[in-house]
Amino acid sequence: MTLKMSREELAAYIRGIFPQVGDDFIIENLSDSETAIRLVVGEKHLRPGGTVSGPSMFALADVAMYFAILARIGREALAVTTNCSIDFMRKPEANTDLIARAVIHKLGRALVVGDVLIYSQGMEKPVARASLTYSIPPLQKGAGTSPAQEEVLVDGD
Amino acid sequence: MTLKMSREELAAYIRGIFPQVGDDFIIENLSDSETAIRLVVGEKHLRPGGTVSGPSMFALADVAMYFAILARIGREALAVTTNCSIDFMRKPEANTDLIARAVIHKLGRALVVGDVLIYSQGMEKPVARASLTYSIPPLQKGAGTSPAQEEVLVDGD
Amino acid sequence: MTLKMSREELAAYIRGIFPQVGDDFIIENLSDSETAIRLVVGEKHLRPGGTVSGPSMFALADVAMYFAILARIGREALAVTTNCSIDFMRKPEANTDLIARAVIHKLGRALVVGDVLIYSQGMEKPVARASLTYSIPPLQKGAGTSPAQEEVLVDGD
Amino acid sequence: MTLKMSREELAAYIRGIFPQVGDDFIIENLSDSETAIRLVVGEKHLRPGGTVSGPSMFALADVAMYFAILARIGREALAVTTNCSIDFMRKPEANTDLIARAVIHKLGRALVVGDVLIYSQGMEKPVARASLTYSIPPLQKGAGTSPAQEEVLVDGD
Repeated sequence: MTLKMSREELAAYIRGIFPQVGDDFIIENLSDSETAIRLVVGEKHLRPGGTVSGPSMFALADVAMYFAILARIGREALAVTTNCSIDFMRKPEANTDLIARAVIHKLGRALVVGDVLIYSQGMEKPVARASLTYSIPPLQKGAGTSPAQEEVLVDGD
Repeated sequence: MTLKMSREELAAYIRGIFPQVGDDFIIENLSDSETAIRLVVGEKHLRPGGTVSGPSMFALADVAMYFAILARIGREALAVTTNCSIDFMRKPEANTDLIARAVIHKLGRALVVGDVLIYSQGMEKPVARASLTYSIPPLQKGAGTSPAQEEVLVDGD
Repeated sequence: MTLKMSREELAAYIRGIFPQVGDDFIIENLSDSETAIRLVVGEKHLRPGGTVSGPSMFALADVAMYFAILARIGREALAVTTNCSIDFMRKPEANTDLIARAVIHKLGRALVVGDVLIYSQGMEKPVARASLTYSIPPLQKGAGTSPAQEEVLVDGD
Repeated sequence: MTLKMSREELAAYIRGIFPQVGDDFIIENLSDSETAIRLVVGEKHLRPGGTVSGPSMFALADVAMYFAILARIGREALAVTTNCSIDFMRKPEANTDLIARAVIHKLGRALVVGDVLIYSQGMEKPVARASLTYSIPPLQKGAGTSPAQEEVLVDGD
């Protein structure tokens, strides 16, 4: 699963198509074996009690896998989330960034499957785990300008 | 699975403990067999391309199941999301509210399991489906003031 | 989602390609809205303690969804299981058949998504719930003779 | 997550309570960080086309996680599968044993969460991945004699 973009190229590309994402998510590491993404935890990611909300952890898992795929399929391709199974296991530390570590198990022509572990920075044990499936639609008209849930355009029904 | 709160009582209770939630989520229906929650879709729920984001749909599924459980276990109890498996099936309509319909299959002493279907208002077919598991911790010190991810306090490890 | 086969045609077709399956699984109902499949519970499906084993319930969920899809896509097509998320909620009755009720939420060109509820015959509440995703590979050389996990042949990686 | 049993003690214990399991599943490795279980693939695990069936892979994932937990909670405790989300990614080799590698992410008082990767022996890439949740019921009368799905006895509903 060779990388088609370096960490810097991926960061620049993401910032170009998702300006708002670049402020929240930072690419910590991008290698053949792992993609690590940091969620810069701010007020909007918290819920009552001072911990990071479930939707924020879901978003981090989704973004980490999306970045891992994008670095491998390149700018021209499209990838949309079709399934995520996420387990919340521990309470994240308040006011602490989260780090997601994504691993791809299969990069097929039609489907990509991988796992993500999410850590509170500095904690040894993960706060959440997730597995995700992305679909790579056969027709790619818009080519990279509009990710996620475009599948409907080409999958009928 | 008798209800311990009416729709009005549940709405008032939610508004008291989660003031910010009350603006986004509206209880459309609360009955023995189904809980229907509306996400009032605004700018913050969209992603590039004008469709509702995955994390917003995840949040709606989670809230719909949480409200369904709360109406059945009452104010004193605590319930925390432990797993969600969600499938994104169709692209939601832009600028259209989403309606989640939650059904509980099991309301045990320790675990609650249910399904949620999410619809773009006015569309016949669902845009997403989710199944969720909530854990009801045995000790309930905080008693209803702080939902979600409190499990760690009582589950050790 | 019109049916391309009647219950009798589907049963005959299944018996032709999977002789061994026909003894364990019976099509109870096949309609536009639901496919009901019975697992004739025998010694081989039990585990110590006299209840139906987890793998037997998984197999029933998988078969129920497969039959529901086959009746809709017809004999020429191929469908392979890519994901199953299953929750075990109650202990099945010993020496009692199980009934699976499958509903399809999306029948796309590439992916099919649906839910299954499994009941011990005569019990009101379900013993298990499952959601499944099937992939319909784009190339269909073998055309209906070899189901499940053929995806690899056409999905690369 | 210290082990309470050695590989040999676990194998002997399993053989005592599940005589039939001992013939199909072999403990390849048992350490603090990983539990590896071999499925000795025989005729009964295959499906038409000569590949290992989905239910056999599900059973292997379930057994691998169960053994990993048992080695850590000891003989007196009870653990029952409550959820499994499994992705089938590649076609297993025919007539080749499968190896499951299980890792536990959380060993709580009430819930255990872990991941399993399944390999065809000799293949580099996994054929399936699964995440599983086990529940450890609070009351343990039968104490180790009857695993799985006993939860209902103590979880009410």
